[in-house]
Amino acid sequence: MADEPRWLNECEREAWLALAKLMFNLPSALDAQLLCDCQLTLFDYFVLSKLSMTPGRTLRLSELARRIGSSLSRLSNVVKRLEQRGLLYRAPDPENSRYTRATLTDAGWDLVVAAAPGHVAAVRRYVIDGLTGEQIDVLRDIACHVMRRLNEAAEESRSGVSPSRGRDHAGSAD
Amino acid sequence: MADEPRWLNECEREAWLALAKLMFNLPSALDAQLLCDCQLTLFDYFVLSKLSMTPGRTLRLSELARRIGSSLSRLSNVVKRLEQRGLLYRAPDPENSRYTRATLTDAGWDLVVAAAPGHVAAVRRYVIDGLTGEQIDVLRDIACHVMRRLNEAAEESRSGVSPSRGRDHAGSAD
Repeated sequence: MADEPRWLNECEREAWLALAKLMFNLPSALDAQLLCDCQLTLFDYFVLSKLSMTPGRTLRLSELARRIGSSLSRLSNVVKRLEQRGLLYRAPDPENSRYTRATLTDAGWDLVVAAAPGHVAAVRRYVIDGLTGEQIDVLRDIACHVMRRLNEAAEESRSGVSPSRGRDHAGSAD
Repeated sequence: MADEPRWLNECEREAWLALAKLMFNLPSALDAQLLCDCQLTLFDYFVLSKLSMTPGRTLRLSELARRIGSSLSRLSNVVKRLEQRGLLYRAPDPENSRYTRATLTDAGWDLVVAAAPGHVAAVRRYVIDGLTGEQIDVLRDIACHVMRRLNEAAEESRSGVSPSRGRDHAGSAD
């Protein structure tokens, strides 16, 4: 009986199916707005935006990946493409040349500044406007909970801990 | 002043960034589990699962797209691929041959039945377990709110209504 699947109850199933529909549709709607207005995907926008908010407009790729919540390999591909467009450039970190840093160019800055109002209007239109303050807080808590679970699972996978045993190692806080 | 962007406040920004991280990461984590266990993506699983829950295991592609919350073009590509694997087959709807229906095969049924426990365990692990009943209800409400907004925007776009004017046409209820 311990191996019997714990199926979702009706409320859990409704919530999960609604979230799945959101995941199938919201990214492409936000991509479409940004692509139409400034030839950026949502992911591109996050890369440029995170750099624009950093002193010196520069971050190590590993730190940029962490802040976006992306794998380093996916980020590296996007950064190469944005570099070809002259929106940022890569260089070895002078403090430790094993690391690569990305720096926003003036063209990248101008593009993200121009893109921000339309993007924020789309986020308001599709997500934020119409939610109560309480719903917004719960949304943040739930999304952070999911990201903690994903990070724990990735860490367990790296350290070879079986999911069924739970975490018996010293997990690092994010 | 009417055109000044309404930037997100701190709570809204935190919630949105957390949701964006979820959207960047949860689909690939669920894809990875399904691909590893049964060579299905999350989207493939939804297609097979929706058919498996339908009397006759058959649906028009347009209705299947609606239930999954997908565009017809994306669904059509996936359905072709699943047909090549013998998991479903397409045929004209006998009631109206302008429509195409998809029917789950026995092989498709067996695969989705075999896939379900592992998939549900992953959904529990990454999303559902650890949330309160109240949080689950709010998650459903928020995700349904976003889908309504996206559907309204798509309908406005089709009927040529400017977003800034709001909806002045008779929108159909979903």
